[in-house]
Parts: sequence; structure tokens; C-alpha cells
Amino acid sequence: MRDFSQDHRWLSINTATVRKSRGADVPLLDILDACAARGIRAVAPWRDQVASAGLSRVASALKAHDMALSGYCRGGMFPATDGAGLQAAHDENRRAVDEARTLGAPCLVLVVGGLPGALDGKAADKDIARARAQVHEGIARLLEYARSCQMPLAIEPLHPMYAADRACVNTLEQALDLCDAIDPALATADTRPADLGVAVDMYHVWWDPKLQAQIARAGQRRLLAFHVCDWLTPTTDLLLDRGMMGDGVIDIAQARGWVEDQGFAGYSEVEIFSAANWWQREMGEVLDTCIARHRSAV
Amino acid sequence: MRDFSQDHRWLSINTATVRKSRGADVPLLDILDACAARGIRAVAPWRDQVASAGLSRVASALKAHDMALSGYCRGGMFPATDGAGLQAAHDENRRAVDEARTLGAPCLVLVVGGLPGALDGKAADKDIARARAQVHEGIARLLEYARSCQMPLAIEPLHPMYAADRACVNTLEQALDLCDAIDPALATADTRPADLGVAVDMYHVWWDPKLQAQIARAGQRRLLAFHVCDWLTPTTDLLLDRGMMGDGVIDIAQARGWVEDQGFAGYSEVEIFSAANWWQREMGEVLDTCIARHRSAV
Repeated sequence: MRDFSQDHRWLSINTATVRKSRGADVPLLDILDACAARGIRAVAPWRDQVASAGLSRVASALKAHDMALSGYCRGGMFPATDGAGLQAAHDENRRAVDEARTLGAPCLVLVVGGLPGALDGKAADKDIARARAQVHEGIARLLEYARSCQMPLAIEPLHPMYAADRACVNTLEQALDLCDAIDPALATADTRPADLGVAVDMYHVWWDPKLQAQIARAGQRRLLAFHVCDWLTPTTDLLLDRGMMGDGVIDIAQARGWVEDQGFAGYSEVEIFSAANWWQREMGEVLDTCIARHRSAV
Repeated sequence: MRDFSQDHRWLSINTATVRKSRGADVPLLDILDACAARGIRAVAPWRDQVASAGLSRVASALKAHDMALSGYCRGGMFPATDGAGLQAAHDENRRAVDEARTLGAPCLVLVVGGLPGALDGKAADKDIARARAQVHEGIARLLEYARSCQMPLAIEPLHPMYAADRACVNTLEQALDLCDAIDPALATADTRPADLGVAVDMYHVWWDPKLQAQIARAGQRRLLAFHVCDWLTPTTDLLLDRGMMGDGVIDIAQARGWVEDQGFAGYSEVEIFSAANWWQREMGEVLDTCIARHRSAV
């Protein structure tokens, strides 16, 4: 297992972590500057932040900073009530693949979506099995295009509390079942990232009694990303109360050991949505804390 | 599958659903009276409510109303930081078994507990594997006593969002793995409830892609209780924002079909914690709504 205690070479900042500073939106280019100034070598930006800053300007800034991506956030949201909706999702996902390629991302992260309409509080139906079938079909279709662009797709299983409205893929086992069904032929001698794999975000999967076994099942080729933050007790909001590493109950180092046992050697990406705490602080303080906790609690 | 649309013979009220009326605590005996007045034939009371009313008075009231229990809430909370804590939990659980027996409950529901101290926001450690091992040992030990009292134990897997602080058994598969490990010999010709089984609460398990398969695995003997409410979108509180059946995204009837396919023929128990909505209404309105939704949405 790599020693993270001496430096932060393997730290990546998911830019949602500092999308707000003292409650105000921070332009993505400012985030990149602040990360670069601290020797942070990688980020994972969100599409809306990239769109606001301008794709080519972001690409130029990354190049100027010699900064890598640990992933691109995000594609997905496949389910829909009709064919036009499914096609619109597909078209949007192709654009996400294109952007990921322009930015040199190692993978496009997929948050697959839940029941159509549920995110607006108006679920069109209660048929989660249908949503899951649409996710299966949507990933299979997108994979053809992503392969042609050499852009790996990383299915991110989301915590079951998001099953209705954000992602109906809720365990690592379920995500790997999808990988094996859609992209079955993995030559084990090959060590390149699989075309289709998973993003392991500890916030979503830490509770899973099968976590270690499923990480081993994933193996090096399917482990495309590793995200960290912490689970607070109590958690006061289902979406925006994630904790800084070390402030909660997740044994992050243990799980990092498990992914590294499989050969994972990528970045540890910090992704914290924290409306009442970290988004109310100065960006610099948050980034400095991420660096410190990366060394002590990851 | 039983037809629930014409009457509410198979409705049970978990008394937490009406523990508050217009925000004020309701004595358990008043709840029993209100249920009996509506022809509700079963309830599932909580230990703290029983203690406040007096165990023998509750037993007498149930007898006077010819009212059954669908379960007794609850035992569990096994993990502890030391032997004294484990012993205290065991002693408390024996008392819960005794009370369940006095009240004629068909099973004692187990909410198994999480990381010691986490419920108070002060987790003693991050070792969920250890907590799970303590749960295993605690149930095995309690089962000896429960068997001697002819009181089945029903492990209730709780939603993964409660893994840290309330229950580290979080899927039906995990609960059944425990059942099979602790109480392996089930004669299939026998149709009596197993000594150790599960309580299937739709709020906790609805999202699980393996739900149907694990219900089939459980079979009639392990299916000791069936709890219903609904998952709201959005959900505004992790504990106290459960929905009335029909107001959320859970396909309850489908899952009831699955448990009845296995031979389950017990009560459908309504358990709704709703601080901002149902606990602010009159108890009578809540009970009448439970009856209506039992017919239309369960």
C-alpha cells in the first residue's frame, strides 16, 4: 500500500468539493489555480463548471498547470419515460464522452439515474426494474461510442438512499454484474483499464458487507476511480452533508488497501458536498484541509 | 395474493406511527383503544411505550380488545466496547424476550445496532466488521434463551443509511446469511415459524436489486414480519420522514406478492416515523388513512 503520509502526489480534488467558498460560487479556473498553487496534481471537474468556464479554456488551463484528471463528472441519467427521452440522454452522454476526451480524462464517471421524474419529486412510475433495464441498455449503447473514443466508462454505484432519484445501481456487486454482462471479455494478462469499469466512492459503498469481496472481484482493470470523503454521525442531509476524511466513521485506509491490493495505482479523489460546513469556508482552507487529511486519514 | 381492497383484516399498526398526535405524545392504551374502535386487529408496540403504560395493563388491554401483535419492537443493539456492555445488551434483550412473551408477540424484532457510540455521535471506532461479529455472537447467545421461551427472533435489516448508528445488518441477504449460520437446520416440511428469521420492512429493502431472490431464499419459515410505509422523493430527514403508503416510490403490492408467494400469511404492519407530517395530525386521521391506504396501496 502506498504511503500517503509524506506528500500529496496522489491527491485529486473533485471540484464540487470547493464549488462554493463562503457560500459563493467559485469559477472553475480559480479552483484550478488554487489547486496548482498547492501542488495538487489532479482534479475531477463537473460538466456544469466546465461549461461555465468554457471547455477549451479549461483544457488550456489544465495543460498550463500540467494537471491531470482523475475522472470527469459526469454522464449517466439514462432512464426516461419514452424513446425521445432515452435518445436525449444518449446524445447528452455522447457529448460528455467528447468533453472527457478533450480534457484528457482517464474515464467518464456514470451516475446512472433513477426513476424518471423522481429527482423533481414527480416519479413517473415505481418500476425500478424497468429503470435498471434502461440503464443496462443505455450503458451498452454508450459503450460503443465511448470505445471508439478510447474513453473508459466508470459506473459509480450510489448509496441506496439515492436509488429513487439519482442512481438505481446501488452496490458494487450490481455495478460489476452490469460490467460483466455488457463487457464480458477481459483478458487478465492485459493491465490497461477496461472499457467499462467502476468508480468506488467510499461514501456510497462503505457500509457494504460484501465490499472487500467485490473489490477483489473487480480487479485492477475494472477499478477506474477511487473517491473519498466521510460518513458523519449524525448525517443531517441526504445529499449535502458529507464529511471530511477523518471526521466520520469510514475506515478509508482499510478500503484503499483493498483497492491497491488489486493493483489500483491512481489518484484518491476527494469529493465532498457540504452545504452547511465546508462550502461555507474559504476555498484555501478547504484545500489545505484536504491535503492534511489525505496524509492522515486516507 | 390476498385481496386487501375490501377490508383491513390484515392491517397491523406499529404504534410508533401514532406515537404523537398533533405533536403531543399519545399514551399506548389510547392508541390501542383507537385501533380497536376501527376494527384494527393487530398492533406492534414499542418497549418504551409499553413501559410507560405498564406491561400488565398493556397485556390486559390487548386481551380485552382481542387484539394480536404482529411483532414486538424491539431487541437488538448488540455491539459494545467491552464485555460489560455486551452483557448489559444481552440482559436487556432477555427482558425484551420476556415482555414479548407476556404480550403474546409472534416474534421479537431485532434492530441489531451499529458502531458503539455512533448513535450519540461519538463512534468508539470504525470497525464495522467487529460490530457485525458482535451482532452474530449476540444473536446466537440470545437465541438460546428465546428458544426456551418459544419466542422467534426476527432480524430486521435496516437501510444502509443506518449502518453506522442503528444497524450494521443492511441487506436481506446479510440477514439470511446470519440466520443460516446461527440456525441452520430448517426442516422444510415444517411450516412453523423458524426460531430465527427476518422482518422485511419495505422502507429498508425496497431498493435492493436482490430483493425478490432473497425473499424466495428466506421462504415461509424465515419470513416473520412484513412492514410497510413509503419512500418519499425528496426525503428530508434520514430518520423521521417516512411516507404513507402510496405517497412514495415503493411498489409495495409487488413485494407483498413476493412474500405471499412464499406462504407468508401474516399482518402487513404500518410503521411510519414522520415528525413533520403524520405526527402533526390527529391520531384518528392517521389511522383512517392507514386503513384506506392498506386497501389501495398495499
